[in-house]
Amino acid sequence: MRRRKTRKKPKKDSITQLPWQEVVTRFSPLKIISEDEIESIHHASLDVLESVGMKVLHQDARNIFKNAGLNVNESSQMVYFDRDLVLSKISTPPEEFILRARNPKRDLKLGGNHLIFSAVGGPAYCSDLDGGRRRGSFEDLQNYMKIIQSLNIIHQEGGMSFETIELPPETRYLDLYLAQFQLLDKNCQSYPLGKDRTRDCIDMHCIALECTREELAVNPSVMGIINTNSPLQLDIPMSEATIELARSAQVTCITPFTLSGAMAPIKQAGTLVQQNAEVLALVTLTQLVRPGAPIMYGSFSSNVDMRTGSPAFGTPEYIRSTIASGQLARFYGFPYRSSNTNASNSVDAQAVYESSMSLWATVMSHANLVNHAAGWLESGLTASFEKLIIDAEMLQIISESLKPIVVNPENLGVETIKSVGPGGHFFATDQTMSSYATEFYTPMISDWNNFDNWEKNGSVTTIERANKAWKTLLKEYKQPKLDPSVNEALIAFVEKRKEEINNAH
Amino acid sequence: MRRRKTRKKPKKDSITQLPWQEVVTRFSPLKIISEDEIESIHHASLDVLESVGMKVLHQDARNIFKNAGLNVNESSQMVYFDRDLVLSKISTPPEEFILRARNPKRDLKLGGNHLIFSAVGGPAYCSDLDGGRRRGSFEDLQNYMKIIQSLNIIHQEGGMSFETIELPPETRYLDLYLAQFQLLDKNCQSYPLGKDRTRDCIDMHCIALECTREELAVNPSVMGIINTNSPLQLDIPMSEATIELARSAQVTCITPFTLSGAMAPIKQAGTLVQQNAEVLALVTLTQLVRPGAPIMYGSFSSNVDMRTGSPAFGTPEYIRSTIASGQLARFYGFPYRSSNTNASNSVDAQAVYESSMSLWATVMSHANLVNHAAGWLESGLTASFEKLIIDAEMLQIISESLKPIVVNPENLGVETIKSVGPGGHFFATDQTMSSYATEFYTPMISDWNNFDNWEKNGSVTTIERANKAWKTLLKEYKQPKLDPSVNEALIAFVEKRKEEINNAH
Repeated sequence: MRRRKTRKKPKKDSITQLPWQEVVTRFSPLKIISEDEIESIHHASLDVLESVGMKVLHQDARNIFKNAGLNVNESSQMVYFDRDLVLSKISTPPEEFILRARNPKRDLKLGGNHLIFSAVGGPAYCSDLDGGRRRGSFEDLQNYMKIIQSLNIIHQEGGMSFETIELPPETRYLDLYLAQFQLLDKNCQSYPLGKDRTRDCIDMHCIALECTREELAVNPSVMGIINTNSPLQLDIPMSEATIELARSAQVTCITPFTLSGAMAPIKQAGTLVQQNAEVLALVTLTQLVRPGAPIMYGSFSSNVDMRTGSPAFGTPEYIRSTIASGQLARFYGFPYRSSNTNASNSVDAQAVYESSMSLWATVMSHANLVNHAAGWLESGLTASFEKLIIDAEMLQIISESLKPIVVNPENLGVETIKSVGPGGHFFATDQTMSSYATEFYTPMISDWNNFDNWEKNGSVTTIERANKAWKTLLKEYKQPKLDPSVNEALIAFVEKRKEEINNAH
Repeated sequence: MRRRKTRKKPKKDSITQLPWQEVVTRFSPLKIISEDEIESIHHASLDVLESVGMKVLHQDARNIFKNAGLNVNESSQMVYFDRDLVLSKISTPPEEFILRARNPKRDLKLGGNHLIFSAVGGPAYCSDLDGGRRRGSFEDLQNYMKIIQSLNIIHQEGGMSFETIELPPETRYLDLYLAQFQLLDKNCQSYPLGKDRTRDCIDMHCIALECTREELAVNPSVMGIINTNSPLQLDIPMSEATIELARSAQVTCITPFTLSGAMAPIKQAGTLVQQNAEVLALVTLTQLVRPGAPIMYGSFSSNVDMRTGSPAFGTPEYIRSTIASGQLARFYGFPYRSSNTNASNSVDAQAVYESSMSLWATVMSHANLVNHAAGWLESGLTASFEKLIIDAEMLQIISESLKPIVVNPENLGVETIKSVGPGGHFFATDQTMSSYATEFYTPMISDWNNFDNWEKNGSVTTIERANKAWKTLLKEYKQPKLDPSVNEALIAFVEKRKEEINNAH
């Protein structure tokens, strides 16, 4: 008797989610300021760069500006920007580029109508429903990274979801980079605090992508978020990182942190002028280092709460400046970065409404990179496990809403409507039967049961469902393949660098 | 000795909120379908009206159609719409109109770029944090109405926030109408279920506004939401209300309830065709009754969850159909109505993200009336006290975000930036000192304290703050003035009508 081949049933993921996909917006970007007003802001920011200047703490950076003919005062560390030089330099970065991932299927298009969703990066704390808010362990961080890998709607890791203080601060970034390559095959952001952290990141990308630095320069893979010390100051670590990234033709995402009323003028127009001046100064630096180096125009302008001095996010001011900043970025032809922000201390209604306000503003202003798109809480001090899931659900909804309505004779459905007739229902039509399983968006965590069933099932709220969801994703996490020789080379690099760093201390 | 006049300190409201205001959007409406696709949907809906027709259960309505020359089958109650008649009739409603309120300062502009936010109407239950979900008492309803009056961002009451079963069903609407005039001076929606409820509403508006029916026809004040029984059916109560409203030149807000996959085709294009056909049929009815009677194009198209059969709201499908419906409404030159919807069973993250998705879609599609803009929960089965506040906060944020960024030489702030210089701060500049108190949006319930202070204050979450907020508003509620003779006339009308109704039963 021939033994029947038993066919293994493919295991179904317990979390229904959208497939990995490019997200493209089909709507025209919103406009909140006129062409004339864009010009006014542009010229005012050139005035600021020329007459106020920028304080550049790093000697090498000052030298670069000096060698380009700019007026530099060494004792005050001030650099005064000739507008003609700025205007010539800001014309050289590419309008669009591709950011490579370890898995070529996950390469990212930056620019145009493309939207990239990046996970939270930078918080000091992590939090979840079970353990509360805490200093995260390395295991916490690895778990967070595994969930980021598992969530298809997230295109990019955010360069250290949160600091893990159980690892030594001098070499922590190396453990992060190694984990990025071992746990994810998506593009992962750099941790660009100073020369070594940036250079090592670039070296490890070369190892992981099995390419030379020259090849990496042609197809960039490293992105670093570069913050100015607003107002009008550039510190040493950020200068070093900018120079390293630009020299290797990797991506500097230039993002002034300009809160109106604190580090920027209280008037939004003034904040935009200052933000714009700082971006243009840094773009000039990158292009002096290497013409054509890819850059992004980042906006993080919001306001402070004048009663507490706390930053405020997802506010009307945030929405307006996000839209105006998109207009400025497009004015220069730069890919645009904004963020999904909120100032809530818990994953509650405020966290969600501030986040969704931010998200809609970023999407409607054609942000190409939505940084901190999932997980950000508490003005960026905390990365939340549950918020990661809730944000991912929102990102999925928004992505699906950007897809077209297909209008063709069959979909117009006159025959279907005729077949059902007045007072009937469409549950059993051929059209419904053939497409009901895939026609509509299926949520990850939204519960559409009626109240009685919801209550019978234990009145489980969204945050509890999000808690369950990330645990399921974690349990079902599949580690992406990594060539063992590449893995060994990465490990060897990290060990060597740790030794060097520890010996130097 | 002359006694010094003691000046009473004006009592400050404990809830900081925006003043009553017209909300106008300055953004271009989103477009998701092309002009050609709009034409296709338009023609397909005319095909449906002509070849499938609509079942009209009400004899008077059928007679109106028959007298206009339409083909009516009395035994099947079917009306077949000649497209030329439809096309001629849909050209007569006004593109914009003003809806009067008892307080002339609260008159509402419907159409153009105006946005009107209406409170929830229609639920069976109410809920709050203290008492949970329940059948609301009349006191609950009055409390809800007082809060609606107190929230400046809400322009209009929604025509019975929730049913109060302690009042007899036959005359409950009279208690509602009386409370509308006694507790609010804002415009209040009608409860247009049948002839009497509509006619009495119109009569009471005449009493309250001290005008004749002829004067009311010139300056309408009554708005009724008219739902079809999709697919393609119009019942007797809705027919009666439509005829009454149109005859008096009051506003019919025509809103098919078309859930793709249940009462409408599973394909969104087909749902739009059916929605459009039903709207056009009802517009035709109103204009046959009285050419020029004001109408609105309402969309309530969403989808059902094919696993449970439950309605789904705030979904990508909802967002897309909201945008497309706005395009259709503008194609005809009709003021447009959409809604703030969600399907959550509790005021949690899902409630907020589904609501905010709906809200952004309605605003970005230029809905002129955002119905159920505040308070809606659980697919419209429940009116929540806390959700009312949270939605009002979202409406405030969105309204403020629609305001311009003022770009002028002073706001561009080059001098201010110069005065602060690199590395400084803007807290103490003249510009900050002179405008810090009013420059930024002040939230009603968002908490921007840092984590430590938030924890010290008891880790109060948004829903708890919303609970406190509505109680404060209720405590500080000020009853708007109502002329005693008008009040007496309204009471007398209600008593007379109750007697008539009770005698008839």
